[in-house]
Amino acid sequence: MPVFSRPRALVFDVNETLLDMSPVKQAFLETFDTEFAFTYWFSLMLQYSLVDTVSGSYHTFPQIGEAVLKMTTEFFNRPLSEEVQKQLLHTMAHLPPHPDVEDGLQQLRQAGFRLAALTNSPGDSLSQHMQQTGLGHYFEGLWTVDDVQVFKPSPKTYQLALSRLGLGPQETMMVAAHGWDIAGAARVGMQTAFIARNGQSVYPLATPATLTGDTVGAIARQLIAH
Amino acid sequence: MPVFSRPRALVFDVNETLLDMSPVKQAFLETFDTEFAFTYWFSLMLQYSLVDTVSGSYHTFPQIGEAVLKMTTEFFNRPLSEEVQKQLLHTMAHLPPHPDVEDGLQQLRQAGFRLAALTNSPGDSLSQHMQQTGLGHYFEGLWTVDDVQVFKPSPKTYQLALSRLGLGPQETMMVAAHGWDIAGAARVGMQTAFIARNGQSVYPLATPATLTGDTVGAIARQLIAH
Repeated sequence: MPVFSRPRALVFDVNETLLDMSPVKQAFLETFDTEFAFTYWFSLMLQYSLVDTVSGSYHTFPQIGEAVLKMTTEFFNRPLSEEVQKQLLHTMAHLPPHPDVEDGLQQLRQAGFRLAALTNSPGDSLSQHMQQTGLGHYFEGLWTVDDVQVFKPSPKTYQLALSRLGLGPQETMMVAAHGWDIAGAARVGMQTAFIARNGQSVYPLATPATLTGDTVGAIARQLIAH
Repeated sequence: MPVFSRPRALVFDVNETLLDMSPVKQAFLETFDTEFAFTYWFSLMLQYSLVDTVSGSYHTFPQIGEAVLKMTTEFFNRPLSEEVQKQLLHTMAHLPPHPDVEDGLQQLRQAGFRLAALTNSPGDSLSQHMQQTGLGHYFEGLWTVDDVQVFKPSPKTYQLALSRLGLGPQETMMVAAHGWDIAGAARVGMQTAFIARNGQSVYPLATPATLTGDTVGAIARQLIAH
């Protein structure tokens, strides 16, 4: 376990970490008749974002999402109309925050932490999302990997956030609900907090998370107690 | 569609392309009570091999397989004994070839093509596997990404094969049952053949495969007809 020291800034992942993906899980369940269709699709989306990254190619996260939706329909042998495909991607673009998020962010701001967001989604969808959810004003920066054209967990993505914060990695903490994001942030020397959302787990071969909790509030309490 | 020109050498992916993963799918089905557990596990294994690659870390494919098996047991909320875990990984290490493979390789050798294999698995398991299946003698080289410590589809892995063959990319053809392998090989300029095994599909955002067929024999017939 890495040694904890009070970070000056927290960098939040967005999808699943702040935003509740249940509505898109439900939409996939209704469309494909199995809850695994969402898991399959999202897993392919993450895998192919890295296929692009390691092979020196780049497409936006929604472009990859649409491409791997086609692969998902082939896997489940379930052709979808263009309308249904659009509905699924629309649902993904309009997710609500998890119920614990706003209170947790408020506590962290009141305790004097600088807050920012760093996501694999492009900037325009991030801004729209943060405006819809009313969370935008908690963050001094809403940053996207689209600006460096590689996906998390590439070191370049975390270095983008560190450079915009003007802080060293050990003064910051990446907060995420995905093992791969925790793994990548630790590789550049950031502290990390894993939010153990339903169905998520850490990568056993990576540096363990500095902090772990079930909600943003649980992480906030640990940070404030120090 | 890229223009076809008769390649001098064919480089084969191994897992799923040559080896039939049905026994490990069956073992996961019996262990987790759902056929989706295998898909989840193998998809995580590919995703985390790339997480390691982009974040500048490296573990062997079996080490990653074991780590993500732990994540799979957490996802399905199904703790497994060490014995069952070992059985699953043992099954993975002893897969039989698909029934079409030997005849297809024989046709290709008789037609004068040079043949090699390039896999994400480490060299010792590859050699053992090729010895068990009796396929080893068809290949002039059995090559592993372990020698460059990054995973396919990193360009370094295909360049390893090209350098050992002493050929340029356009004189070779990567043969694989995975969209990501086709995508990566095309990025370094190799010709590609997609074997459309059950449940597999190409990545719609990548360069389309030069050739497509259901079996090694179907690819061989197209190559020999030219």
